[in-house]
Amino acid sequence: MLDKNQDKCGVFGIFGHPDAARLTYLGLYSLQHRGQESAGIVVSDEKNVISFKEMGLVADVFNEDILKKLQGHIAVGHVRYSTTGSSFLKNAQPLLVNYHSGSIAVAHNGNFTNALELRTQLEKKGSIFQSSMDTEVVVHLIANSKKTKFEETIIDAFKKIEGAYSMVLMDAKRLIGIRDPYGFRPLCIGKLGLNTWIITSETCALDLIGATYIRDVEPGEMVIIDKDGLNSFKPFPKKKHAFCAFEFIYFSRPDSNIFGQNVYTIRKRLGRILAKEAPADVDFIIPVPDSGISAALGFSQESGIPFETGIIRNHYIGRTFIQPHQFMREVGVRVKLNPVREVLEGKKIIVVDDSIVRGTSCKKIIGMLYNAGAKEIHLRISSPPSKNPCFYGIDTPQQKELIAANIELEDIRKYLKVDSLAYLSLNGLKEALSLVKDTFCFACFDGKYPVDVPCDMKKYCLEETMEARIEQLEL
Amino acid sequence: MLDKNQDKCGVFGIFGHPDAARLTYLGLYSLQHRGQESAGIVVSDEKNVISFKEMGLVADVFNEDILKKLQGHIAVGHVRYSTTGSSFLKNAQPLLVNYHSGSIAVAHNGNFTNALELRTQLEKKGSIFQSSMDTEVVVHLIANSKKTKFEETIIDAFKKIEGAYSMVLMDAKRLIGIRDPYGFRPLCIGKLGLNTWIITSETCALDLIGATYIRDVEPGEMVIIDKDGLNSFKPFPKKKHAFCAFEFIYFSRPDSNIFGQNVYTIRKRLGRILAKEAPADVDFIIPVPDSGISAALGFSQESGIPFETGIIRNHYIGRTFIQPHQFMREVGVRVKLNPVREVLEGKKIIVVDDSIVRGTSCKKIIGMLYNAGAKEIHLRISSPPSKNPCFYGIDTPQQKELIAANIELEDIRKYLKVDSLAYLSLNGLKEALSLVKDTFCFACFDGKYPVDVPCDMKKYCLEETMEARIEQLEL
Amino acid sequence: MLDKNQDKCGVFGIFGHPDAARLTYLGLYSLQHRGQESAGIVVSDEKNVISFKEMGLVADVFNEDILKKLQGHIAVGHVRYSTTGSSFLKNAQPLLVNYHSGSIAVAHNGNFTNALELRTQLEKKGSIFQSSMDTEVVVHLIANSKKTKFEETIIDAFKKIEGAYSMVLMDAKRLIGIRDPYGFRPLCIGKLGLNTWIITSETCALDLIGATYIRDVEPGEMVIIDKDGLNSFKPFPKKKHAFCAFEFIYFSRPDSNIFGQNVYTIRKRLGRILAKEAPADVDFIIPVPDSGISAALGFSQESGIPFETGIIRNHYIGRTFIQPHQFMREVGVRVKLNPVREVLEGKKIIVVDDSIVRGTSCKKIIGMLYNAGAKEIHLRISSPPSKNPCFYGIDTPQQKELIAANIELEDIRKYLKVDSLAYLSLNGLKEALSLVKDTFCFACFDGKYPVDVPCDMKKYCLEETMEARIEQLEL
Amino acid sequence: MLDKNQDKCGVFGIFGHPDAARLTYLGLYSLQHRGQESAGIVVSDEKNVISFKEMGLVADVFNEDILKKLQGHIAVGHVRYSTTGSSFLKNAQPLLVNYHSGSIAVAHNGNFTNALELRTQLEKKGSIFQSSMDTEVVVHLIANSKKTKFEETIIDAFKKIEGAYSMVLMDAKRLIGIRDPYGFRPLCIGKLGLNTWIITSETCALDLIGATYIRDVEPGEMVIIDKDGLNSFKPFPKKKHAFCAFEFIYFSRPDSNIFGQNVYTIRKRLGRILAKEAPADVDFIIPVPDSGISAALGFSQESGIPFETGIIRNHYIGRTFIQPHQFMREVGVRVKLNPVREVLEGKKIIVVDDSIVRGTSCKKIIGMLYNAGAKEIHLRISSPPSKNPCFYGIDTPQQKELIAANIELEDIRKYLKVDSLAYLSLNGLKEALSLVKDTFCFACFDGKYPVDVPCDMKKYCLEETMEARIEQLEL
Repeated sequence: MLDKNQDKCGVFGIFGHPDAARLTYLGLYSLQHRGQESAGIVVSDEKNVISFKEMGLVADVFNEDILKKLQGHIAVGHVRYSTTGSSFLKNAQPLLVNYHSGSIAVAHNGNFTNALELRTQLEKKGSIFQSSMDTEVVVHLIANSKKTKFEETIIDAFKKIEGAYSMVLMDAKRLIGIRDPYGFRPLCIGKLGLNTWIITSETCALDLIGATYIRDVEPGEMVIIDKDGLNSFKPFPKKKHAFCAFEFIYFSRPDSNIFGQNVYTIRKRLGRILAKEAPADVDFIIPVPDSGISAALGFSQESGIPFETGIIRNHYIGRTFIQPHQFMREVGVRVKLNPVREVLEGKKIIVVDDSIVRGTSCKKIIGMLYNAGAKEIHLRISSPPSKNPCFYGIDTPQQKELIAANIELEDIRKYLKVDSLAYLSLNGLKEALSLVKDTFCFACFDGKYPVDVPCDMKKYCLEETMEARIEQLEL
Repeated sequence: MLDKNQDKCGVFGIFGHPDAARLTYLGLYSLQHRGQESAGIVVSDEKNVISFKEMGLVADVFNEDILKKLQGHIAVGHVRYSTTGSSFLKNAQPLLVNYHSGSIAVAHNGNFTNALELRTQLEKKGSIFQSSMDTEVVVHLIANSKKTKFEETIIDAFKKIEGAYSMVLMDAKRLIGIRDPYGFRPLCIGKLGLNTWIITSETCALDLIGATYIRDVEPGEMVIIDKDGLNSFKPFPKKKHAFCAFEFIYFSRPDSNIFGQNVYTIRKRLGRILAKEAPADVDFIIPVPDSGISAALGFSQESGIPFETGIIRNHYIGRTFIQPHQFMREVGVRVKLNPVREVLEGKKIIVVDDSIVRGTSCKKIIGMLYNAGAKEIHLRISSPPSKNPCFYGIDTPQQKELIAANIELEDIRKYLKVDSLAYLSLNGLKEALSLVKDTFCFACFDGKYPVDVPCDMKKYCLEETMEARIEQLEL
Repeated sequence: MLDKNQDKCGVFGIFGHPDAARLTYLGLYSLQHRGQESAGIVVSDEKNVISFKEMGLVADVFNEDILKKLQGHIAVGHVRYSTTGSSFLKNAQPLLVNYHSGSIAVAHNGNFTNALELRTQLEKKGSIFQSSMDTEVVVHLIANSKKTKFEETIIDAFKKIEGAYSMVLMDAKRLIGIRDPYGFRPLCIGKLGLNTWIITSETCALDLIGATYIRDVEPGEMVIIDKDGLNSFKPFPKKKHAFCAFEFIYFSRPDSNIFGQNVYTIRKRLGRILAKEAPADVDFIIPVPDSGISAALGFSQESGIPFETGIIRNHYIGRTFIQPHQFMREVGVRVKLNPVREVLEGKKIIVVDDSIVRGTSCKKIIGMLYNAGAKEIHLRISSPPSKNPCFYGIDTPQQKELIAANIELEDIRKYLKVDSLAYLSLNGLKEALSLVKDTFCFACFDGKYPVDVPCDMKKYCLEETMEARIEQLEL
Repeated sequence: MLDKNQDKCGVFGIFGHPDAARLTYLGLYSLQHRGQESAGIVVSDEKNVISFKEMGLVADVFNEDILKKLQGHIAVGHVRYSTTGSSFLKNAQPLLVNYHSGSIAVAHNGNFTNALELRTQLEKKGSIFQSSMDTEVVVHLIANSKKTKFEETIIDAFKKIEGAYSMVLMDAKRLIGIRDPYGFRPLCIGKLGLNTWIITSETCALDLIGATYIRDVEPGEMVIIDKDGLNSFKPFPKKKHAFCAFEFIYFSRPDSNIFGQNVYTIRKRLGRILAKEAPADVDFIIPVPDSGISAALGFSQESGIPFETGIIRNHYIGRTFIQPHQFMREVGVRVKLNPVREVLEGKKIIVVDDSIVRGTSCKKIIGMLYNAGAKEIHLRISSPPSKNPCFYGIDTPQQKELIAANIELEDIRKYLKVDSLAYLSLNGLKEALSLVKDTFCFACFDGKYPVDVPCDMKKYCLEETMEARIEQLEL
């Protein structure tokens, strides 16, 4: 509902645990922030490969009856983000198919930049696609590979693929983790006891099930886990790393460690640097909950200005809050966020948030704070201006909708009606990440895309392109 | 619930009506006796091709909201029989897929005898199958055809297929009907007004929507209907016809005309001939409802013995009647059928049914009638002994379960505990069909299979074979 | 869907069986023809009294999980007819309430003619009603009784009640059956083994569970069954019996015995007498299925004219067949009934049905038969003209909608467009019932109401009256 | 899931708005923290009074279709807390009944201490209860009142009632708010525009719909709002006020003002005083989210010790998180709360929470923090030890389960395994509330109950008592 960029997916794979599906359920539950549209689990006991997926939150999709039927010691799971309109069950993951060598299931976080081209080639050769997901080209490439060894068919397929992918795959007997050579999205390896391996998007999933973090799947690495343990392959040409900076700014959970660092710690550091770059003389600092909390704490600690809870967030949202009616739209942002008038009345405040996308919900929040009596509002954003869409697995609007891509800082300030507005500088962001700048992808800020993006994809997201072409709907 | 052979499917296609989905809904409703497991409709307005299918009865699967969304003037629909265990939504039809030339939807009644062989070949070339249905090989063959003209790709695909098929297909702009050269299953053409064409399994579907019967799709014929009207193709080598005799004996609706004759009329004729072949000195005749009613009337009219309603059938069955509990099994056949003690008490009766498969439910009905006071029971069956499974689209048990394939007539009589037992002779059946004997398939009676059947299919039905191989389940 | 008078309810009570709820489920299943709107069961193990009821068919409302939870050896169950509009779950039965002496549950077949008057009195004294059912006044009268012995409180309550009732009641430890002194609706007693008692509407419910018919609950009798067996009470002043003739004509199942006679046998006798009263020179006789079948058989046997199945009924109706759309209305009666053209073409026929209410669906059926080629149609009705609404538990339209109450026989014939039309005479009906005429209620034919009916009830059915007054709806 | 005392209900009433149901929906949504079991709305357009209620969260219970049907300008709504086991739909509120003078609906927050006694009296007089709620005695008392004027029947009823109640009632034409003379639970009056009146539990409900706070319904006051405006009645003898202190400590939303003060402000003050009473030498302070956040901020600001987010709460909970399985129990508190190892490792910390009930979940959280590397943990509780159950509308365990009622402070410290433990003193609490001590109820801390409680209620909560007596369950 709030105007935010969104991660498209979270993945979880496990090998070697008798309760594989149940642990996957828990893992997906802790990755729910990476996708609320659909959830799915595929499990294997080396004989049967069983799948269950539905639209909805993890805790709503699965119940004890279903988990009981998902017997096996190998599993992969997936949560997917809800983009409006094109969210069909057939696009839910993991995608499980049969081909000449048996079953294969894939769960994807990322985006293939050459998916449409690959699909057209495959269809011309006679392949029939089931979905409009870029992910599906992987299984067709595997099924069409002329290689005979399992790992070579996988490598053969991924060598044709460009873009961002942090994926888990499985067949009846193996768990596979694979990450593109740039390393856009996080993917880590954990262990539970002696014999259970986990591959997942964030370490918070390891924490929940009591597993220990071992290491990240490296950029350009494929790991295959079977009953003989983990095997590592590095079949792809090396690339300059391009970790997603926005995973730290907004997407990942504060308690996760990704790309080798803790998210909450980095997020507070963003606030500290912002406090130095853009101070203001105010009575106190409030965050936009929950996205601005960590940075606001950093800002408060650096500046010595008190941190207050000036906005209360209603967490009882239920599956669907009724929107379409006119009256509801007027109620707007208050449904989720309510200002504390007693705190705000007559006060000068700094408001901290992580980013501004279109600016629409930000404007509403600011208006709400003034209505609640705030005298002066200084807005501080803990990332640089978002000026470019992402094509590597983040759901962003088109460039023409990104406010910072279209108007100047002062005009944004006027539009939002704040007394002052400051973004974190790109250098400040790099400082906070405390890494050589070449390790990260900052394309959404500076427009330097590490992997080329086809022209038509720049206009539309991939799925829209595919669906337009396909002329088919399932109700 | 009753121990009967079952038709596997009913199909309906329509071209040129603004309410195509609604008429298909009605058509499927009238074909419900051909399949109660799932129902589906695909519709096209020449731009979008939309599909909806669910497990359940036609009237339960569709509602006004869904029908409203199924906009278009071309549609195909399908009802499928409920075989226990392997009934998944993914096996529901019509099957709608996208391939290099757009969308194609298929609805099938019949059985491909070489489906497994074709599937293995296609998978080896890299094709990925979505279901365990034999029907799916059709769309892969079409997608892999090297031909360029639409009708040639269809013909190219079907030339590779052996077995029984009465199918309707559609793409975004065309409706296609196709029937195998043997003509196992019925398929007829109807018209509504000047411009609306219908292709469907039985004429009762034409009656319900007020359409006029034009002619049958001939064995070995393909018809393509588009905005320029109907085009007929006869691309297959001629074969001796092999119409299914059991469609007259049990499957089709009495008000339908199939293979050029009315079902009720033939069914009564079976009873008349049976009366001549196997008379008995009784007080009256009762049918097993509803399967024995028409033949019992014929028997009564020929013999002059009164027809009575000695068994009442409960038609309020609901979606699921609870079975598993021990107590329920004892109640058994009485849930559906209740004898009228007042009528039966102390009476000598002829009981007429259409066929005996395993003999289990028949035995229960006979026992129930004796318990209700019948003094003598003479069982008359309006078809020859069922001794062989069908591989052309009928769901029959394996041969070892067919009572007439395993024990002699006198032993069946003893097992059923009737005072006398007689089946219609094969010659009697042929006489009733009043056609040269070569026109029909009598394989279930005489074991002469018009199309060769692979060895493994003789053991298992095709779907079981495929599923065993596939090692995959969807909950 | 068809234009028929409808019974409003069926009841079933059982005492002394460990599987009381399951047997009640079966009993209700066999009484489904007496009500398809809602189904409910209340069960007691002498400690807990548990209830479950829902809108829907018996087999859809209950499942194994629910039956497992309905533990106890005493149960009552109820099925209710679907009247449009006012069918809320709160009006489903059995009605289970708590009062000063514990729990009491009631299941009713019939109609209290003074319900509104009693309700007004009770509300004035401070009672709060939960539903708009006449049945609810019973429990309030019991709760307000000054008597102390259980049976006396029941008698005290029913002494205030006028009209038709065949009811089963239970508290935590007793099963009660009670029938009004006129005996309008049937109610019988059965036994299963030595210790299990059943009280139910029709004997077909006894048959299904394998119980033996003992005797009817007599008009004006109350029986109380507890662990010491059955006790009979006859507390009410004697009245001239007024058994419902329509139970024989249409409502009850043919395999049931009611009021001491078999329904199928009587129904055939109606046909035989009708054949003598109103013969016609035709090729054959067809029934309107299923309502006219038994009488048509009687007509055929008496006249020697052959019986044919000229109309096929589609029994796969599902929960809801979509109606509102214009196109569907044109399809009309064909959705349920399809004529067999081969049989009808060029033929002179007698069509037999049990009754005509508004005449609307009858007219459609006749039209459909002419369209299918019938040359001459002679309509024969196996009951006298329906001229008056019933106020004793049958759902009939108001008098102004009853065609025979408003126009003459010849005008009905013209309206229906048949070549001849004849009803059974009232004397013929009495002859068929083979009882002194005073034993039956013929009010729907002759307007002689055995129990006075308040003026406002003559206009509206009771529930409408109550609901109008109550000004309350539950969605 | 967490071991907390819970408020039992939230209420909302509105008069004079064409979209009354929709505004009530929003109001209930903002009161969701006061009850997550069931939600209901009753609405009147002065002709029809319509009700809808279901188990579930507000946003899940209602949808656009339902809201559209709830037409009217007067409405009351209710949310109810989920107590395990006895949560049946029949106990959902508002309770809507019909009595001799029409419809009346009631929505209750509180607890009648003499409900069982009143119910027994009413049942003896013949009243039949529909539910096991104490609330239902109100409507029976009203229906049984001998008074004739509407307001007098209400007053007559409430004069018989003892205990805590902040209620909204409505009939077809009036909205009523009533609060017991002690004023245990909050209840406030708001206005939207000129003609729309609102009566609700907390001011956050006024904020969401954009209404203005007018004043509280005073202890012992009844207000009746109709088309002529608001009328105030004060019919009850004056009592010493007994506002619930726990509303400030935990129940109410931080952005609400209750009993004349802002909740967040008081809650921070509790932390400040606690910081003075029980300091500790640590690296930083963390709250248990969300219950300890406000007090922890106050503690941090008073002590100058930094505030950190050491525990992350997962807010994506869905309708049901699967619990029963053994493995899930081990996962335990981590499902909701995850520690941030990077922050905690090797650190001395103060953990702030609002209260300790049984101590079970508190112990798990502490253990989790030590496992995440915390070196020293000093637990600070922002309220005095909870030693006595509440009988005035809060769901508390029995006294034997309250850890502080059974063991000494030092033993609690040892049980929880913390380095130090301190509760806020009762005087500290009183200081924070900055009011004469007599204005508040501190019974849960000091055992001084303002209203006498019957012996049996001290053992069981009222509902359990009633249900035990009633011997009835509805599935």
